[in-house]
Amino acid sequence: MLRKYKLTLLYDGTLYKGWQVQPNGLTIQEVLQQKASIVLRHPVFITGAGRTDTGVHARGQTAHFTTEQPMEKRRFLHSMNQLLPPDIRIKEMEEVPLTFHARKSAVSKVYHYHLYLESVMDPTKRLYTLHVQEKCDVSALATAASFLVGTHDFTSFASDGSRGIASYDSIRTIERLNLVQEEGGLKLEFQADGFLYKMVRNIVGTLLEVASGKRAAEEIPLILGARDRRRAGKAAAPQGLFLHQVFYS
Amino acid sequence: MLRKYKLTLLYDGTLYKGWQVQPNGLTIQEVLQQKASIVLRHPVFITGAGRTDTGVHARGQTAHFTTEQPMEKRRFLHSMNQLLPPDIRIKEMEEVPLTFHARKSAVSKVYHYHLYLESVMDPTKRLYTLHVQEKCDVSALATAASFLVGTHDFTSFASDGSRGIASYDSIRTIERLNLVQEEGGLKLEFQADGFLYKMVRNIVGTLLEVASGKRAAEEIPLILGARDRRRAGKAAAPQGLFLHQVFYS
Repeated sequence: MLRKYKLTLLYDGTLYKGWQVQPNGLTIQEVLQQKASIVLRHPVFITGAGRTDTGVHARGQTAHFTTEQPMEKRRFLHSMNQLLPPDIRIKEMEEVPLTFHARKSAVSKVYHYHLYLESVMDPTKRLYTLHVQEKCDVSALATAASFLVGTHDFTSFASDGSRGIASYDSIRTIERLNLVQEEGGLKLEFQADGFLYKMVRNIVGTLLEVASGKRAAEEIPLILGARDRRRAGKAAAPQGLFLHQVFYS
Repeated sequence: MLRKYKLTLLYDGTLYKGWQVQPNGLTIQEVLQQKASIVLRHPVFITGAGRTDTGVHARGQTAHFTTEQPMEKRRFLHSMNQLLPPDIRIKEMEEVPLTFHARKSAVSKVYHYHLYLESVMDPTKRLYTLHVQEKCDVSALATAASFLVGTHDFTSFASDGSRGIASYDSIRTIERLNLVQEEGGLKLEFQADGFLYKMVRNIVGTLLEVASGKRAAEEIPLILGARDRRRAGKAAAPQGLFLHQVFYS
C-alpha cells in the first residue's frame, strides 16, 4: 500500500549547494534521497517545502515522500540519522494523507535571519550569522520593517533566478516581522503565507541599508510600490538565514 | 623601547590542534605568531593565558607579547584581523606593564561548557556543544556540581598529559559553577582561580554520569577525597568547551 510521510529536517547548509538537486554540486535533497533509497531499497523522491539556497540553514524544513515499503517510523528515522552526514538530521516523521504536499499544503512559513553586531566577529558564529560592520540603527531598522508587514506586492524584493516567480502572482502577506535581541546581535523573525525567491535576503539587505543610514525607512513603501527589483537593496549573505518552521492547516 | 601588549582573542578551535605550538598540526599560537611576525617584521612569541586543547574554542583567551617596534594599536589590530583566517580574531589590545604575564598574572578564569539536550542534534550546533543522548537529570547534575564549588584538591579531575601538573600543587578554588538554561540545552559556567589539565572536561564528564543515573551526586566528595584520576568519569568532548574570560587584578 502506498503511504506518504512528512519529515521535519535540520541542516547546516554551509557545505551544500542548497536544497534542490542540481548538476553542479551536492545538495541536501540529493543526500536525503540517496540515503532514503538505501533504507527503503527503492528510488525515493523527496519534495521539500522550500528550496533553500547555498549556505542557507534549516531548523524546521519539511518534506514529503511516498513509499509502498512497509516500515516502522522510529526505525526508519534511526537508520536515516545513522546514514546521514552530521550536518543533516531528521527531527520528526509522521504519516500524512496522500493529498498532503510539503510545499503546496503549507499555509505559513517562518524564516529567521541572524545579524551579529559586535565590532569583532565571534568566529564560532561566522557560518550562522551575518557580521554587520557598518552602523546599525536598530530603531530605524524596526521602523522600516514595520512598513513590510501586511499584504503587499513584493516584486521589488524578488530575485527572479531561474524560477520565473516574477512572471506570476507576487502578492504575499508578511504576518509577522519581529526583531529579537540575542547574544551579540539581533534576530529578524519573518512569518508569511509564502516567500518569493530570495525575498528574505533581499529584504534584510534593504533593511541594513536603512540601518546604516544609506536610505530612509520611509523609502520602503515607495520601493514596494515601484514593483522593480532594482529599487531595493542587495541580497544579504546566505549564512544568516534559517528556514525555521513550516505550518500546515 | 620594549613594550608589552595584551591581546584578547576569539577563536573557533575546530580545525586546530589546540593553542600551543606543536609538531603534529597547526595551532592557534602558531598562526598568531606567524601573522604578528609579518606585521611587526620580527619574530614574535605570543604567550597565552590557557593552553586550550584540540577542538576547544575561545571567546576571551588572553595573551601577551613584547616588541620594540613602534606601532599604532588600532592599526596593528586591523592588520592582524585582515591577515588572520576567519576562525581566529583579535577582539582587543592594550599596552600592559612589562611585569604582566598572560598566564601567571591571571587571578581567575571562566570556562563555559555547552550541553545540547534535545533528542536530535541541531547540526549548526554540532561543533560548539556536546549532544547529550542519555538521560540528563538536571537537578541531580546541579546537586553534584554544588559539591565542587569551593577549595579542593582536584587531583581526581586532572589528566596529567605531558605537563606534569599532578606532580605539584593541585588545590584550586572553584568560585562559581552555575547552570544556565539556553536554547535546546544547558550551559555550565565555571569560574576558578585556576584549572588543572582537562579539569573542566573531566568534571563535565563526571557530572554527566550523575545526570544519567550512573553515579549518585553524593559520590563527588568521595571522588575529590580519593585524589585519584581513575575515580572520576571520562573527559567530556572538547567541542562543548569555551575559554570565556580571564581576569587580572
